Amino acid sequence: MRRPQRETVDGLPGRVTIYEVGPRDGLQNEKAVVPVEVKAEFVRRLLAAGLSTVETTSFVPATWVPQLADAEELLGLLGDAGRGRTRPVLVPNERGLDRALALGAEAVAIFGSATETFARKNLNRTVAESVTMFAPVVERARAEGAWVRAYVSMCFGDPWEGEVPIAQVVDVAQRLMDLGCDQLSLGDTIGVGTTGHVQRLLDALDAKGIGADRIGVHFHDTYGQALANTIAALRHGVTVVDASTGGLGGCPYAKSATGNLATEDLVWALDGLGIETGVDLEALVSTSTWMAGQLGRPSPSRVVKALAGSD
Amino acid sequence: MRRPQRETVDGLPGRVTIYEVGPRDGLQNEKAVVPVEVKAEFVRRLLAAGLSTVETTSFVPATWVPQLADAEELLGLLGDAGRGRTRPVLVPNERGLDRALALGAEAVAIFGSATETFARKNLNRTVAESVTMFAPVVERARAEGAWVRAYVSMCFGDPWEGEVPIAQVVDVAQRLMDLGCDQLSLGDTIGVGTTGHVQRLLDALDAKGIGADRIGVHFHDTYGQALANTIAALRHGVTVVDASTGGLGGCPYAKSATGNLATEDLVWALDGLGIETGVDLEALVSTSTWMAGQLGRPSPSRVVKALAGSD
Repeated sequence: MRRPQRETVDGLPGRVTIYEVGPRDGLQNEKAVVPVEVKAEFVRRLLAAGLSTVETTSFVPATWVPQLADAEELLGLLGDAGRGRTRPVLVPNERGLDRALALGAEAVAIFGSATETFARKNLNRTVAESVTMFAPVVERARAEGAWVRAYVSMCFGDPWEGEVPIAQVVDVAQRLMDLGCDQLSLGDTIGVGTTGHVQRLLDALDAKGIGADRIGVHFHDTYGQALANTIAALRHGVTVVDASTGGLGGCPYAKSATGNLATEDLVWALDGLGIETGVDLEALVSTSTWMAGQLGRPSPSRVVKALAGSD
Repeated sequence: MRRPQRETVDGLPGRVTIYEVGPRDGLQNEKAVVPVEVKAEFVRRLLAAGLSTVETTSFVPATWVPQLADAEELLGLLGDAGRGRTRPVLVPNERGLDRALALGAEAVAIFGSATETFARKNLNRTVAESVTMFAPVVERARAEGAWVRAYVSMCFGDPWEGEVPIAQVVDVAQRLMDLGCDQLSLGDTIGVGTTGHVQRLLDALDAKGIGADRIGVHFHDTYGQALANTIAALRHGVTVVDASTGGLGGCPYAKSATGNLATEDLVWALDGLGIETGVDLEALVSTSTWMAGQLGRPSPSRVVKALAGSD
């Protein structure tokens, strides 16, 4: 199988943690509900391919996201595979946290919004009310020894509000991190951000004491900018990058079918730069090809298209 | 129509020249021969959208590339539209140069290879023999006052040879520039390059006296790396970027359908950075949508997919 020529340069991290979101963010946006046995096999294959963090499911009410109604069953099927911090789960509220903790979850993620409109549509709350709702979730999770990630969505643009001021994103991020979260994930939910915007947001967060060591980036490829934006974040010192194997998922509010940055395209870029990820690209492409077969449609990942079926 | 939020940063050029290759590189790789009237309309629309350089056709023998056998007719139809340096044409050899000069061409491009295998397959010559063949082409073009660009293909990898040493690319580039060419276009013909590789190749060329002011970059999106690689080149000071409206074209030797960097995805990135290009994104998306209709298939550009038909 073809591999990129390794050409290292200064000014980039030596190692990057890929935060794989395919099983949760990817499958949650599929129209069809994927059988729980297929989900378990997907997670097992991702772990076997060397991914050190796989966000596995969400403890959201089944009426909200029927695609992930099998969260308990999935964790049961997985058993000890990746148990612990390797396998974070999303918890929308205290009820979701209860369910996750009852199953021994050791890493959880909450999902906030940088804009009022999306907070209202996604959480049925104002931004301030959502922070109030998350406070006891974070407090209890930490009291139980769990690691906590805070997503902030719509950081680079909002489908209803248009431009999103950087100061507004920094304000929401600060309020969530002040609750005691361990990691912040900056989401370009509709994929409109560009490289300068990434740099300026990271600079603004840094100025308020939220450094690159506590930040992950989550880019969508709707406008083809995801990988360029990721490299811009690495140049700033970020070492946690969200990606979805095969490019699964996306945002239902962005018109294009293209969604998350494909993990394979990211691994190609990082392998070329000599940045360690622990991921075996060949095993990942094989996993994507298998999953595309399960879903009955080709992967949007460019690397998968180029490499699938090659020697 | 949605636009990126403008967030400028230091260390990038204030203006970039997009070298549009859709009519030549794009249409040459289409299976079907596009009617010459459609080609003329395509070029006119690209010029109207604000592109300052549109490589229009190739004076290659019709037996080699039947898709571009109408070069004389096309230039006749275009008349004064974009006449001059705005409208370069490819000339494979002296015979092609004769034909182009007879029609008043003021800018021509030659097409070399960084690898022996591709030189043999594409030009039926060794690299050294191809430089010998190009010498009188460049000399005569310059004597006639024409501007000359030298493409070097397979700069970042070769489908038969695999890795391509940077020193080998620099050597071929030097030999072509020593002939008296005005601009060098570095081609990642199979799309395998990554950002560090770009930086190291540009550094190596700089060390040999070929600075960013004489370099254009030509990336393919086969592995999803084209835009990230382009931004890496801009950081080095490069201000000429090849792209193809709608992402038309590609390399017949790369398995994937994805080819040239889409001009729209590039314009989105540059608009967000506040870098001037003179290009009207809305007119460009409209042109791509029209051309996709002519070709009977959707554009692979992510921006076109996201924006086509939107307000």
